[in-house]
Amino acid sequence: MVCTCTEFAERYNFAAGPAMLPAEVLTQIREEMPDWRGSGSSILEQPFTSAAFKGLMEEVEADLRTLLSIPRSYRVLFLQGGASAQFGLLPLNLLHPGQSADYLESGHWARRAISEARRHARVNVIASAAAQSFTALPSFEQWRPSPDAGYCHITSNETGNGLQLRDFPQLAVPLVADMTSDFLTRPIPVDRFGLIYASAQKNLGIAGLCVVIVHQNLLRRPPRHLPAAFSYAVQAEQQSRFNTPPTFALYVAGLMLRWIRQNGGLPAMDEAAQRRSRELYRYIDTSRIYRCRQHPPDRSTINVCFRLIEPGLTDTFVQQAAQHGLYNLHGHAAEGGIRASLYNAMPQAGVRRLIAFMTAFEHAHG
Amino acid sequence: MVCTCTEFAERYNFAAGPAMLPAEVLTQIREEMPDWRGSGSSILEQPFTSAAFKGLMEEVEADLRTLLSIPRSYRVLFLQGGASAQFGLLPLNLLHPGQSADYLESGHWARRAISEARRHARVNVIASAAAQSFTALPSFEQWRPSPDAGYCHITSNETGNGLQLRDFPQLAVPLVADMTSDFLTRPIPVDRFGLIYASAQKNLGIAGLCVVIVHQNLLRRPPRHLPAAFSYAVQAEQQSRFNTPPTFALYVAGLMLRWIRQNGGLPAMDEAAQRRSRELYRYIDTSRIYRCRQHPPDRSTINVCFRLIEPGLTDTFVQQAAQHGLYNLHGHAAEGGIRASLYNAMPQAGVRRLIAFMTAFEHAHG
Repeated sequence: MVCTCTEFAERYNFAAGPAMLPAEVLTQIREEMPDWRGSGSSILEQPFTSAAFKGLMEEVEADLRTLLSIPRSYRVLFLQGGASAQFGLLPLNLLHPGQSADYLESGHWARRAISEARRHARVNVIASAAAQSFTALPSFEQWRPSPDAGYCHITSNETGNGLQLRDFPQLAVPLVADMTSDFLTRPIPVDRFGLIYASAQKNLGIAGLCVVIVHQNLLRRPPRHLPAAFSYAVQAEQQSRFNTPPTFALYVAGLMLRWIRQNGGLPAMDEAAQRRSRELYRYIDTSRIYRCRQHPPDRSTINVCFRLIEPGLTDTFVQQAAQHGLYNLHGHAAEGGIRASLYNAMPQAGVRRLIAFMTAFEHAHG
Repeated sequence: MVCTCTEFAERYNFAAGPAMLPAEVLTQIREEMPDWRGSGSSILEQPFTSAAFKGLMEEVEADLRTLLSIPRSYRVLFLQGGASAQFGLLPLNLLHPGQSADYLESGHWARRAISEARRHARVNVIASAAAQSFTALPSFEQWRPSPDAGYCHITSNETGNGLQLRDFPQLAVPLVADMTSDFLTRPIPVDRFGLIYASAQKNLGIAGLCVVIVHQNLLRRPPRHLPAAFSYAVQAEQQSRFNTPPTFALYVAGLMLRWIRQNGGLPAMDEAAQRRSRELYRYIDTSRIYRCRQHPPDRSTINVCFRLIEPGLTDTFVQQAAQHGLYNLHGHAAEGGIRASLYNAMPQAGVRRLIAFMTAFEHAHG
């Protein structure tokens, strides 16, 4: 064993999502549970058609618009099914018959998006990180976009292989981004995108909610074969209440947005994300037993992926970390290794505790 | 005013869904919030890939199978998007190209299902309650099923217009039922169905989860145009973890199933539903100012829909009821009038309190 203590005042959850929530948000959920805003019942029991709940949805949208400076020409949709569902719903909603789509192949999640899109449309992979074993991103100069594509899809942050796009290109076709894992961790130029989507269970609360921010010019009548509940145009027209929305997940999203604002907004989230990941990468790069193969300029500030040089130690590392109050550090199932997911709710103290554990583990096994 | 008291020890939520939850379930959610099963974090923060969470999903499925006596030849799926999404996903998943589907037109929700199915397939309405202004159901003898339909769809309970199928026919084609609003309120012969689906926010917890119980013979490779996340076959193969499931909604479903079991199971739920609705209908039928137009043998035990003979009093009734701790009694937006939704969590005392209020209101306005 690395140390002899068995109890910790603080516990840290490094899961990739559903992920750690701020203690203040958890406390508020618990305190408000018996009676939401004087309604006489809990938020879990609120009709989604009530004036109070419609008001909550309007607040969530307004807070999101303020945080991200979303222009008025964009609609904000609150949907179900997560990013994986959007992988199929994007081509069905956005492409005209016969139109193709461009995709950047940056890692595990881009590949999932591509493989689903291929079931619905012709897909051009305009650049790929495959030649670098998904440890580095192709530069913009290497992208080969198609002038007649319906859109160009990117994954702003690869949760599984720990790569992140620092900047976003200006393209001739609408840029569509899966931002699930770094949504709300930094300011982004929304007007450079045609559509942004993100599942909530990383930085916007809990599983079961997916936000879609879409330019109004991309909305079109649902084609045949697309269920109305999954049509962006239908949900935009119905303020995301065509069917019962995931009411509790929306409530938690509202609490998360307020927490982000109260903690300095996106510039502060960005600074904290940089600080957390910088400290961890710096330690890994100087260690003798850990190794991060990701190209430094492309490394994710959110999901720090690394390996033990001795792979046989991986399970021991994960188990002992959990015994020290550092949970869910195993890598993505398809990648192996170790992954520390550092979302907005992760305090710098969590990273320090992780580094302290890693240092002790290195002394024991180095 | 009907009475002078302004505070009530008990409050009752008659919303159609999201709906009232049992106090014991709310208490358990609140108590377990800081640390779920010794994991060091809340249920909201659990990775869906952990052994503990997979175990929870297995428990939920096992409890549901026990309560409903689901045969082994059926698969149980936990999906997102609610019943409205299933309206489109049913024909996409179940029909072969060119195949038609039969639908019973029993009310508002059947019409929603029909209108969505028509976007994807040929639909035969085999019988309709339209001629009776949706106040009575066509008898089985009046149904005109097509021998070559892919399935026959029914709505077991119409939440908006308060009609309920007491029994289910034996048909040559698979019977598919939207049981959203009376799921788990009575024992049902699962083996008479090809597929049963139900959103959770009535009797199985909160919004964001939809259960699909489907005979394994109906599973087939997802056709083109159907996103893999919405394919019954794909989700069956992946134990409903093709994408991140709505983890908190699944946890609440587990608590609800345990609560139902601890309170006598489905026979006891059925008896309580009969008792609640019988008492309320009996009072309405003898009153001078309320009227229920629904044909007595077809009246729903779950959603009691009625009107004030003087429609101008409807808003006053709803407002004063709320002042007396009786919430969300307005009828469905498309129907008007009054609706008292009496799901499993509604105690008989809630119905008594409603009748006491209605009696006092009748004295004041009769």
